[in-house]
Amino acid sequence: MLDQIQSVEDIRSLSQADLKDLAADVRADMIESVSHTGGHLGAGLGVVELTVALHHVFETPRDRLIWDVGHQCYPHKILTGRRDRMLTLRQPDGLSGFTKRAESEFDPFGAGHSSTSISAGLGMKVASDLSGEDERNVIAVIGDGAMSAGMAYEAMNNAGALDSRLIVILNDNDMSIAPPTGAMSAYLARLISGKTFLSLRDIGKQLTEGLPRFFKEKAAKAEEFARSFVTGGTLFEELGFYYVGPIDGHNLDHLLPVLKNVRDSAQGPVLIHVVTQKGKGYEPAENAADKYHGVGKFDVITGTQQKAPSNAPSYTKVFGQSLSKEAAKDDKIVAITAAMPSGTGVDIFEKDFPDRTFDVGIAEQHAVTFAAGMACEGYKPFCAIYSTFLQRAYDQVVHDVAIQNLPVRFPIDRAGYVGADGATHAGSFDVGFLASLPNMVVMAASDEAELVHMVATAAAHDDGPIAFRYPRGEGVGVDMPEAGVPLEIGKGRMIKEGSKIAILSFGTRLSEALLAAEKLDGYGLSTSVADARFAKPLDKEMILKLAGEHDVLLTIEEGATGGFGSQVLHILANEGALDGSLKIRSLTMNDEYTDHGKPDVMYAGSSLDADGIVKTVFEALGRDVNEAAEAGEIA
Amino acid sequence: MLDQIQSVEDIRSLSQADLKDLAADVRADMIESVSHTGGHLGAGLGVVELTVALHHVFETPRDRLIWDVGHQCYPHKILTGRRDRMLTLRQPDGLSGFTKRAESEFDPFGAGHSSTSISAGLGMKVASDLSGEDERNVIAVIGDGAMSAGMAYEAMNNAGALDSRLIVILNDNDMSIAPPTGAMSAYLARLISGKTFLSLRDIGKQLTEGLPRFFKEKAAKAEEFARSFVTGGTLFEELGFYYVGPIDGHNLDHLLPVLKNVRDSAQGPVLIHVVTQKGKGYEPAENAADKYHGVGKFDVITGTQQKAPSNAPSYTKVFGQSLSKEAAKDDKIVAITAAMPSGTGVDIFEKDFPDRTFDVGIAEQHAVTFAAGMACEGYKPFCAIYSTFLQRAYDQVVHDVAIQNLPVRFPIDRAGYVGADGATHAGSFDVGFLASLPNMVVMAASDEAELVHMVATAAAHDDGPIAFRYPRGEGVGVDMPEAGVPLEIGKGRMIKEGSKIAILSFGTRLSEALLAAEKLDGYGLSTSVADARFAKPLDKEMILKLAGEHDVLLTIEEGATGGFGSQVLHILANEGALDGSLKIRSLTMNDEYTDHGKPDVMYAGSSLDADGIVKTVFEALGRDVNEAAEAGEIA
Repeated sequence: MLDQIQSVEDIRSLSQADLKDLAADVRADMIESVSHTGGHLGAGLGVVELTVALHHVFETPRDRLIWDVGHQCYPHKILTGRRDRMLTLRQPDGLSGFTKRAESEFDPFGAGHSSTSISAGLGMKVASDLSGEDERNVIAVIGDGAMSAGMAYEAMNNAGALDSRLIVILNDNDMSIAPPTGAMSAYLARLISGKTFLSLRDIGKQLTEGLPRFFKEKAAKAEEFARSFVTGGTLFEELGFYYVGPIDGHNLDHLLPVLKNVRDSAQGPVLIHVVTQKGKGYEPAENAADKYHGVGKFDVITGTQQKAPSNAPSYTKVFGQSLSKEAAKDDKIVAITAAMPSGTGVDIFEKDFPDRTFDVGIAEQHAVTFAAGMACEGYKPFCAIYSTFLQRAYDQVVHDVAIQNLPVRFPIDRAGYVGADGATHAGSFDVGFLASLPNMVVMAASDEAELVHMVATAAAHDDGPIAFRYPRGEGVGVDMPEAGVPLEIGKGRMIKEGSKIAILSFGTRLSEALLAAEKLDGYGLSTSVADARFAKPLDKEMILKLAGEHDVLLTIEEGATGGFGSQVLHILANEGALDGSLKIRSLTMNDEYTDHGKPDVMYAGSSLDADGIVKTVFEALGRDVNEAAEAGEIA
Repeated sequence: MLDQIQSVEDIRSLSQADLKDLAADVRADMIESVSHTGGHLGAGLGVVELTVALHHVFETPRDRLIWDVGHQCYPHKILTGRRDRMLTLRQPDGLSGFTKRAESEFDPFGAGHSSTSISAGLGMKVASDLSGEDERNVIAVIGDGAMSAGMAYEAMNNAGALDSRLIVILNDNDMSIAPPTGAMSAYLARLISGKTFLSLRDIGKQLTEGLPRFFKEKAAKAEEFARSFVTGGTLFEELGFYYVGPIDGHNLDHLLPVLKNVRDSAQGPVLIHVVTQKGKGYEPAENAADKYHGVGKFDVITGTQQKAPSNAPSYTKVFGQSLSKEAAKDDKIVAITAAMPSGTGVDIFEKDFPDRTFDVGIAEQHAVTFAAGMACEGYKPFCAIYSTFLQRAYDQVVHDVAIQNLPVRFPIDRAGYVGADGATHAGSFDVGFLASLPNMVVMAASDEAELVHMVATAAAHDDGPIAFRYPRGEGVGVDMPEAGVPLEIGKGRMIKEGSKIAILSFGTRLSEALLAAEKLDGYGLSTSVADARFAKPLDKEMILKLAGEHDVLLTIEEGATGGFGSQVLHILANEGALDGSLKIRSLTMNDEYTDHGKPDVMYAGSSLDADGIVKTVFEALGRDVNEAAEAGEIA
């Protein structure tokens, strides 16, 4: 059946029986392709029937179909002209693992982070209303986990008041990356308890009883609301949505009439509560604890996933273990995660200290201020949020933590390039937005042993906020210390002493700096290398010495402009250290969003590798590195 | 009665009749003192009885009393040892207009921004539970407007699941700065419709029927929840809170028994729905549309407020009027505000274009992504958010707008120092956190005429996001153009040509730069002045020329480090323009949070005035400006 689908138009005319066959084909096709590429499998498996139904009922791409987060969009990609490129998924120059506007007109809104779909959809729907053109449908599909984010609530609150005919499909699979947490999750469980699903007859009844209310005048509607309060509506009804559900999201016989009815009759915002099973229809996924949320390549028959051999522990694991060790010595240490216990390594801590672990749901704003509240009472909260998600809590970091100088600790994982996850997940901006803040201490670990010491440093630093960043992936394989030893705040370390060139590295690019130094030494350019450790406060003494005693000073970091290098330039400028003939260069990520790809290619693209460093030093000296090589000046 | 209160202990022992007298005294005292200082009056008037009741029933400061936003805390300050300093309110070195940890042990959490209190309170309560010490009460008082923010929902969602005995008092006055908007607001109106308030008998009934449920075991509670669903609980009950209310917040006979009962009997999170009247008990405030939200000095008898004479229109007004003019020519222009129509000038636009104006409530995250959705459909959204509040939507700016290169316009008011509102409201970080973003255009207006052109530039710029910042207060009084003319993106302008010194200004410090240049010229130091206009993209050509043709180059901006000056340093370094003997200096705000005070003092403190510029230039030249003056070298 899937082979007969040349365009979404073909889906519109299929019979209900054919649609079921199509769903089966899409599921099999997706399992096959992801087995070769790896990626997000479980979420897509859960929405196969929903995806087929949506494209059958709605006139995509004219109608806007927005997938929240976007990691469940593989069936959607298969059905919207991208089937033949599914084997390029998450590969360099291939399909994105999320929805992406630049990739297809069927992706009206790109995603990666959660809980944005209702806001974006409401904007599109209101635009459609304003334009006076033929009304288009806008459908936002959002998971129950994403509903714990305040942003989704803000959008519901606005939609409920605007009366635009936005269609929200709550895809309730009781599972985001980890099982969801919070009162909303418990509430949804109550909503589907007992009766489980509406029968077809119940659906009909709910629709006929419910939908006519939208045709009444405003006054009548207010009265209806009052009545709804007395008789008790759902939480969504209380927020101004018409509620339909719960509905079995794998049953096309139920999905199709509901979607058609809502499409044809709804007059205000509607929430359709669809219950699905993450990993549905693929036994290894259904039986896995994480429902195959994100998988590597795997064997379709057995479900066995390939694991890349690893030479060193991941930074995530080192963080989790180090925090556990510190916490064993200090019962004030607590850990906070925003729905990412395993991604952040907080799950490791949780095994040892379940009562001191708080998973607050997808709720980064709350996570940070909750941590601030605990810090007020003498606790030592480690609020572990990825670099890219910490952007969600920036005001809380500023207003609730930094201004009040509260000792909240921010372990920042996924700082820098993230490879296959692409631009939405890159940790590019944290150094910039944190080092600008008075009171803040900002560190970066140059290897996994340094991370151990930085956890100890953060635990010991009790007179203000402190952040430490480390990248995705494995460490470099250095010897690990028995225990973490607190570092002196604002002090870097000299790694190698030279005389002509100085490389000042912040973070894990240190290994490339050392490689570059070796090359430069070989070219007769004696090179110093320093590990800054701190972007704030800067080690002014060390930096002035580097500036004063070398011809070239080069800073390197895995982040955007406005970060570490900028802070160094600022201090050197104002100290007069740039008045003389020092040649200073600052290597950062290029000023562009980098699509998913291989980290090594990304580093090379921004000259953040040994070759890039050497080339930059040569340019600073007014020499072209290639010409120098050809001329035999260098090896 | 107030004169007899030496400490909060004295409030605990008062009779109900005495408490009423105390409330009357506090109200009169506050009106009197604010009439001399100006400040937030209406909000405090609304919570006089509540404040008295809370300090009577709870053991503050051991029990934690958190005021959301904090602008309603004047009665609280009067009752907690700060009465004699109320005339210093919002004055330099005086009391803060908000709660502040450093000011009093009775302020367990500082505020200024809204909707943080439940998160902070939950953190404190959980800390109290963990500590094993005697349990303390934690009370968060939050307005109905603040409830539209996602952060409050995130906190409720977490609290409802944690079962900690947090007490949330919903202060429902149907009025934040503007009347609140959104479905939650409508829902609250329905909750209090009809019966208006619970009678004392009803309160007793609600408490006896409701509270015992908290003593049951978890299993029983789940069952209770299921029953509550069937019979229909309030939205708050569905989120796991026990709900009491609505209660007349000016009636101590009702408030006191409820608070005592909750204090003594509650076992899980409780929400007390208190209805108050903003401006209560002061007729001019009760009758004013904004309920005397923020006032200048005023006459107590007549309520007439003093207005400072103004020489030039405020930037806010210029923005609103300019946007209206542009919108008259372009029906795709829409305006979005997050509950600040008058503060942002969007109210001016709204008068002309009510259908194209969207007040989404205190919901900055949603505001930005809603704007992104509209931009997807060809609209031209101006999403007007103060610098400090845009921090709340940083991830939405990055993930939903900038990565997708959507043409959302960000007018950024209150950029820079804000005087009496203090550190929480200063607009210090926007240039840094925006200029780091690929695709973003960042402008700053150097005067109100420039602002007119920047509105036109933003309207015309349709291939990506664009932000423009301008400060609090009045313009400088320049002639105003008939109409805005779009500026060339990434081009600055030379204001004055000199030969030795160059001052490169970003934003309204330009007038001080010109004053400084006049002085420097007088000292024989021929000075150029340029208005950068853009922090991104930078006018590389102009900046390289300035660097190449002067001995000293000084950048100046009203923002933190990591902003405009850092971007200039970065580009000059990597272009090799710092290799020679150029002396470069970068003036920014000092690396500290600046308490409320006089803007002129703040500028001087960071050398962001003419004297500071001159002094910095002399230092760069290796000369002390005072010695030079004494030596008669300069005038």
